[in-house]
Amino acid sequence: MPLKTPEEYLESIKKPNLELYLFGEKIKEFWKHPIIIPTINSVKITYELAQKEEYKDLMLAKSNLTGEIINRFAHLHQSIDDLITKIKMQRMIAQKIATCFQRCAGWDAGNALYSLTYQIDKKYGSNYHERFVNFWKKVQHEDLTVVGSLTDPKGDRSKRPLQQKDPDLFLHIVDENDDGIVVRGAKIHLTGLLPSHHVFIMPTLSMRPGEEKYSICFQIPSDQKGLTVIYGRQSCDTRKMEDYKLDVGNYKYGAHELFVIFDDVFIPNENIFLNGETEFVGELVNRFAGYHRQSYGGCKPGVGDVIIGATALNTRYNGIEKNAIVRNKIVEMIHLNETIYCCGLACSALGFQREAGNYEMDMLLTNVCKLNVTRIPYEISRIADDLAGGIICTLPSTADLKSEKLGPLLKKYLFTCEGVSVENRYKVIRFLENISMGLGAVSYKGESMHGAGSPQAQRIVIPRTANIEKKIQLAKDLLDIK
Amino acid sequence: MPLKTPEEYLESIKKPNLELYLFGEKIKEFWKHPIIIPTINSVKITYELAQKEEYKDLMLAKSNLTGEIINRFAHLHQSIDDLITKIKMQRMIAQKIATCFQRCAGWDAGNALYSLTYQIDKKYGSNYHERFVNFWKKVQHEDLTVVGSLTDPKGDRSKRPLQQKDPDLFLHIVDENDDGIVVRGAKIHLTGLLPSHHVFIMPTLSMRPGEEKYSICFQIPSDQKGLTVIYGRQSCDTRKMEDYKLDVGNYKYGAHELFVIFDDVFIPNENIFLNGETEFVGELVNRFAGYHRQSYGGCKPGVGDVIIGATALNTRYNGIEKNAIVRNKIVEMIHLNETIYCCGLACSALGFQREAGNYEMDMLLTNVCKLNVTRIPYEISRIADDLAGGIICTLPSTADLKSEKLGPLLKKYLFTCEGVSVENRYKVIRFLENISMGLGAVSYKGESMHGAGSPQAQRIVIPRTANIEKKIQLAKDLLDIK
Amino acid sequence: MPLKTPEEYLESIKKPNLELYLFGEKIKEFWKHPIIIPTINSVKITYELAQKEEYKDLMLAKSNLTGEIINRFAHLHQSIDDLITKIKMQRMIAQKIATCFQRCAGWDAGNALYSLTYQIDKKYGSNYHERFVNFWKKVQHEDLTVVGSLTDPKGDRSKRPLQQKDPDLFLHIVDENDDGIVVRGAKIHLTGLLPSHHVFIMPTLSMRPGEEKYSICFQIPSDQKGLTVIYGRQSCDTRKMEDYKLDVGNYKYGAHELFVIFDDVFIPNENIFLNGETEFVGELVNRFAGYHRQSYGGCKPGVGDVIIGATALNTRYNGIEKNAIVRNKIVEMIHLNETIYCCGLACSALGFQREAGNYEMDMLLTNVCKLNVTRIPYEISRIADDLAGGIICTLPSTADLKSEKLGPLLKKYLFTCEGVSVENRYKVIRFLENISMGLGAVSYKGESMHGAGSPQAQRIVIPRTANIEKKIQLAKDLLDIK
Amino acid sequence: MPLKTPEEYLESIKKPNLELYLFGEKIKEFWKHPIIIPTINSVKITYELAQKEEYKDLMLAKSNLTGEIINRFAHLHQSIDDLITKIKMQRMIAQKIATCFQRCAGWDAGNALYSLTYQIDKKYGSNYHERFVNFWKKVQHEDLTVVGSLTDPKGDRSKRPLQQKDPDLFLHIVDENDDGIVVRGAKIHLTGLLPSHHVFIMPTLSMRPGEEKYSICFQIPSDQKGLTVIYGRQSCDTRKMEDYKLDVGNYKYGAHELFVIFDDVFIPNENIFLNGETEFVGELVNRFAGYHRQSYGGCKPGVGDVIIGATALNTRYNGIEKNAIVRNKIVEMIHLNETIYCCGLACSALGFQREAGNYEMDMLLTNVCKLNVTRIPYEISRIADDLAGGIICTLPSTADLKSEKLGPLLKKYLFTCEGVSVENRYKVIRFLENISMGLGAVSYKGESMHGAGSPQAQRIVIPRTANIEKKIQLAKDLLDIK
Repeated sequence: MPLKTPEEYLESIKKPNLELYLFGEKIKEFWKHPIIIPTINSVKITYELAQKEEYKDLMLAKSNLTGEIINRFAHLHQSIDDLITKIKMQRMIAQKIATCFQRCAGWDAGNALYSLTYQIDKKYGSNYHERFVNFWKKVQHEDLTVVGSLTDPKGDRSKRPLQQKDPDLFLHIVDENDDGIVVRGAKIHLTGLLPSHHVFIMPTLSMRPGEEKYSICFQIPSDQKGLTVIYGRQSCDTRKMEDYKLDVGNYKYGAHELFVIFDDVFIPNENIFLNGETEFVGELVNRFAGYHRQSYGGCKPGVGDVIIGATALNTRYNGIEKNAIVRNKIVEMIHLNETIYCCGLACSALGFQREAGNYEMDMLLTNVCKLNVTRIPYEISRIADDLAGGIICTLPSTADLKSEKLGPLLKKYLFTCEGVSVENRYKVIRFLENISMGLGAVSYKGESMHGAGSPQAQRIVIPRTANIEKKIQLAKDLLDIK
Repeated sequence: MPLKTPEEYLESIKKPNLELYLFGEKIKEFWKHPIIIPTINSVKITYELAQKEEYKDLMLAKSNLTGEIINRFAHLHQSIDDLITKIKMQRMIAQKIATCFQRCAGWDAGNALYSLTYQIDKKYGSNYHERFVNFWKKVQHEDLTVVGSLTDPKGDRSKRPLQQKDPDLFLHIVDENDDGIVVRGAKIHLTGLLPSHHVFIMPTLSMRPGEEKYSICFQIPSDQKGLTVIYGRQSCDTRKMEDYKLDVGNYKYGAHELFVIFDDVFIPNENIFLNGETEFVGELVNRFAGYHRQSYGGCKPGVGDVIIGATALNTRYNGIEKNAIVRNKIVEMIHLNETIYCCGLACSALGFQREAGNYEMDMLLTNVCKLNVTRIPYEISRIADDLAGGIICTLPSTADLKSEKLGPLLKKYLFTCEGVSVENRYKVIRFLENISMGLGAVSYKGESMHGAGSPQAQRIVIPRTANIEKKIQLAKDLLDIK
Repeated sequence: MPLKTPEEYLESIKKPNLELYLFGEKIKEFWKHPIIIPTINSVKITYELAQKEEYKDLMLAKSNLTGEIINRFAHLHQSIDDLITKIKMQRMIAQKIATCFQRCAGWDAGNALYSLTYQIDKKYGSNYHERFVNFWKKVQHEDLTVVGSLTDPKGDRSKRPLQQKDPDLFLHIVDENDDGIVVRGAKIHLTGLLPSHHVFIMPTLSMRPGEEKYSICFQIPSDQKGLTVIYGRQSCDTRKMEDYKLDVGNYKYGAHELFVIFDDVFIPNENIFLNGETEFVGELVNRFAGYHRQSYGGCKPGVGDVIIGATALNTRYNGIEKNAIVRNKIVEMIHLNETIYCCGLACSALGFQREAGNYEMDMLLTNVCKLNVTRIPYEISRIADDLAGGIICTLPSTADLKSEKLGPLLKKYLFTCEGVSVENRYKVIRFLENISMGLGAVSYKGESMHGAGSPQAQRIVIPRTANIEKKIQLAKDLLDIK
Repeated sequence: MPLKTPEEYLESIKKPNLELYLFGEKIKEFWKHPIIIPTINSVKITYELAQKEEYKDLMLAKSNLTGEIINRFAHLHQSIDDLITKIKMQRMIAQKIATCFQRCAGWDAGNALYSLTYQIDKKYGSNYHERFVNFWKKVQHEDLTVVGSLTDPKGDRSKRPLQQKDPDLFLHIVDENDDGIVVRGAKIHLTGLLPSHHVFIMPTLSMRPGEEKYSICFQIPSDQKGLTVIYGRQSCDTRKMEDYKLDVGNYKYGAHELFVIFDDVFIPNENIFLNGETEFVGELVNRFAGYHRQSYGGCKPGVGDVIIGATALNTRYNGIEKNAIVRNKIVEMIHLNETIYCCGLACSALGFQREAGNYEMDMLLTNVCKLNVTRIPYEISRIADDLAGGIICTLPSTADLKSEKLGPLLKKYLFTCEGVSVENRYKVIRFLENISMGLGAVSYKGESMHGAGSPQAQRIVIPRTANIEKKIQLAKDLLDIK
């Protein structure tokens, strides 16, 4: 049966042999670590919701590979409606956790590789597509979480991989034999490896002839030998280790990013989906990024919904909910939030079918979507800061609230309106602080800026896909210019 | 045969008896007037394109009323795909004329009335829906252009219709008998009546009990007796009457707005679609505005395309096309323009079916679409001004260019790069001037701001349709607040 | 006596021999032409106000050259207070005319040349400074209006002057003898020559060794022989020739720009202030532009004041003056407008004394000022459009209002509140139209964008003057980075 | 001698009896607490710089009360130049610490009270001014740091103090006798009490007749008996307690805010500067806020300078310093940052003298300044996030970098360009993280939004001080409207 229960899922991601470090210390059973647990919860919910009747339309799909009913996160999109449902599902989940659920990158890479391996095979007679399909059938059937990673350290950004002082600054092949290849390098910003089962490793940018050793794409199991995994710091991460988790703001859910070093790791042939075909690397990056930029059109509005809700609740707690100017600011937040959603939907609505059979979003509009995501959440967050009040910067700790001596004083002086408990005010304020400058800021702002490519990446794709020459022709036609 | 040829269309809109004034003078044969001709061209092109093979998918549709193949501008949307095709068609046409084609308002009102009259009849047992269907079959079969109008003069905006010093400041019934009603009042901002065959007249805002006489909706033929029609001034309108039309910028296409006074006009019953059902007026305004706000998500990006094209062409003429900073600004224009398009597509993609059978866009997202339209074209236009150069403010007249003495001097000193003719530079500069502050500004900025409702109208609908309570609940659920 | 009366001024600017063209026709007595008169009024008011007791502090100053009390427009700034008074005076005048008064460019060039000629002489032992002082004493003593011009046609913007196909695309020396030089070329965007007495001609950009023939600065009388002057078109220019000037919006004041061709014009030595010293050209452009960018910090907020006032008046006429949302938009307009003013004041407050003795604004902040001017007026204008209502795009002509038949209808239907005359509504609406897309748009938007240098010009100066290395050092110091 | 050495200062602020709590625990010697030390450093630097020759002009001033040379932070402004020097000094200090130095609020309140007590005395014959001068002489002579506080808890924001369920939600008099008053209530957001010597306590908003008990202003020593002081949490506060402080980002400087409860505190008469004169409360709030909003025009650009410097340094470290698009973003940051500075300077340049003798900034422009501060730092920070790269969200801890095993790996893979040490990269990235979402965000964004009054407070003052009626009159005059 393809659907894992949440319990089965939790069991399945334990990786006792993973070489994982946090704050300089080796972590043995990461699934018990208070800093890491919330990030597992964010993937776990994708298993929980798949069990619920009310979310079946969003969470499940019928596999085109096997005919089985599978979790949508492993689905190869079969229609425009699938692309739109992706956006709706992402918004719905983000509404429940207000952070990243970390299961999209692998899904997006899977859809990109399905169609791209088909194209490579067509040109070269290789068998990447079959390999990929075999792997993906397993993912679907076992309801596996796959994540993905592109970003190499990159060293001096003005230089190509081979020009770097240290060739390892881009992940590359250092050896190979009949059974596979050996790779060395690192991937930074690797999101969500711990709660996952497999990882796609992709190049970080387009490659040119001569850069064949850097032109590789493969998958590894998440507990791959030879990896050194270092847990990235996040704003306010250690609050999760304190006695009172309420200060975390969003204390149930989170996401993580890892710095992963590949110390001469062997990759067997069946796990490799691209190897040396330099001219396809740019398109792989583009296509994966395209799917992933679309994803932001779903998840970020979901996070935005919770921020707007918390902000509105906060104004209610303060007795100013009906003030016209306050209301006008809430309207602005909604307007901005829905503008992102519009972009996510629109690039889906203009989707098209690839030769391999699956559907892909519109490349121009998905980049427009993501470019808006590098701006709009910042402005929503700024308005949230405004309506939150200065107290998001000054509220005493929950330890103070729980203190026998200070608690009553805080409760007396933080009282606002009849029926509003100070503990609830604390929760809302801490959540808004979390979004503004805590763990939530990492996901809602930093990741919005850089995830799926920094804004400049979108600005490069936009003119390439917008057909400026056609626009020039339109002007010429209107003005009778030959 | 339902499709009129352009020639048949031109013949069909002559209205020799219309009481039309321009600059204080009565205009007899408006279809020969140089100020008015370009505005007729903008409707005519909707007939021309319908004849072309390449645009069939966009321009034609199969009537659900008669099964005939009709011009899409008379179509009752039968699917989400129809809603999306609407947006694509609007963009395509606007790309050819860079202004308003004036045929959407009636189409949008038609779709709104089709479903709303069904609802009114259901409640009251009236026969508005049948009346409407009869009228609309004629529109489809004869390929008629219908326009629509809401805006009353409104007098003191802080008062209701009956509180106004002059009751006529909102159009209302002054008499009625078994055959129909007599109305008095005025509609200002009436777009495109001259090149049309019929006009829908709708109330300008929600009505309350007691305001039954103001709660009316009906259609009239465009040459209705009893109307006094005054042509509205537009920036640079008289350039169209000069010897050298090139100074107009967009000299082939335009749009107009009229101030129309109803001096006790009789409306027969069969033309009336709402009469006194106050509680449906708000929804009529909303639904029509909803469809029409969606329309802006199609046409404005089309205009934007030509502006971007002309701007890019201008930078090519000046030899700075490849400059990174210049290019970056073009990318920004595209990004902004496509953001509008995304909104137009998205509210269509979330469309739904009304009980009457036709499809309607998502009400929240169409308002988000329009609110963006009140901002984005202004910023696109600002960047266009930037890249146009100061010459859009200083270029001598075309009469100078054509002058025997001055022409050679201007040609010598306005030369830029090999292969660029000064006349073509003139065309592009004049077009960019037109958009910035000429006739094009009326359509691209003023109409973007106020057409289909000023921004405040959208800001009122957005919170009503965004379900803020649900968002509050999401925050409560996440934070365990009961 | 140094101060001219308005009547003396008017007499003094008649230039019967000027070779002036408008719409392809030669204009003989331009001071009687309805299109040109408002632009003369804008300079004339600088003479009128200088006569008024209440404006003495702003309008007059004591010459450092002669000790005479002179019109401030000829003053060489002697203190920071003078720089600040400049800004205050400019705002005050713009508040009265809502457009450009055209007398700053010459003033700004005068201050730049006073200090720069001093520096050139110091290096080369030339006598430019003495020449300049002699000329400027005359300007002060005779209360002359001087304008200035930089912009050459520039041809292919990616090429230097000598690389152009036609060497005349930048104005340059074609001959010289002991008495002076002969120049050929053109200046486009020449503001306000007609109502002036003299014109400074400056290079359009920095020059390099080898470009000595292009490195020239001189003054000419405004009726210089050998000029061909073509009047630039402006949006809605011909409304000034109609029967009812009310449709112009701002019917009393205006500004103009000219396309001026120099057909081998002889410039005597005493009029030349720079000739071949290539390394000083960039600084001349910069310094003049610096003073002129400061000027925008004074005049544009003055125009903004009238726009805000007209907008507020319009909301009063419509009965919505006290609405919280409307009010909030007015506050935003004020906020934006005062932000420009702050920049104008700030670059003055940080002024410093040049070796020649006169004061100069801060170069970084004046560029920040101007860069804000390329954005903020556009947003103010957008909000003005919003609050103006759709009627700025649709109002019938004044000829209609004055018509016996239509006038009463328009008066009936445009009535709003007790005590508001429809004629006054017309005035306010036409003024707002003028700013949005008529003659006012040329001055308030186009000129804000490109006058004193397009935005990119400011973006080039800003990093050069902002001392980024010092900022890097601050970061290093804070973080103990060596 | 009026100037304390840094050592004397440190000694002088020890307050062994202060009832201070942090994380629910009582703190005895706060001056040794790692979370608190950086916040003391930020005040201490104001003493250090005052000792340095190179900063004398900025840091010192001559007292108008005693003729002594004093630290400028205790100076009553005697000229416009003093107001401008204030801004320059604030920028200079902030450039060194990149956070709040916490010594302005008391200074700003001092200047407000000096002139306001004079006015109250003039009306009522009271002796507040003398009391204040006596206190302030001591402040000047002993070189004391004074802070200030307004914000009451405020309870239900839609209600007045007396309507609250608990009358203590606004601080008020609960008893009084001949020697003084007894007050109860709380002040939240109290900045910098620990490193200070005295605190001004002011009402939080305008008061009305009947609210006399809430209309009080007084000073207390910082170790006042009867206070319960709770230290406010800040993003990433506990990083300061970790082994490796580098993860703090800005590890040397900080600021704090406190929640302070007044449990029936006795205030002797000589410390009281307003008591029951309700009509002066609004002006006290306004005047203090006015001075304090001006302050933001100095300090925030100073912080901005360090952010820009760190961002530029980061791009240098990554090898992309010269990229045109990168450079363009740096220019934008500078432009925005200097726009704030312009506002700070401008409201100073238009300063005026109060009857008491000291100078005050322009009220309209200081509010414009602060309103810009509620927006611009957010956008600067957004661009900083962009240029920082995703690594501000993912960088492993400094403990990892220092780890024997992981350190070499991180150094290998975080290498960028010749001469760039990975430790320095860490420093810059951590600083940028700090500004984006750590301790720096509290000061650079949260405080910019709410310090000296939330944006709505400025939007209320702006229309009151902008003379909208005069603007309307300008429009009427131009358009001949009577």
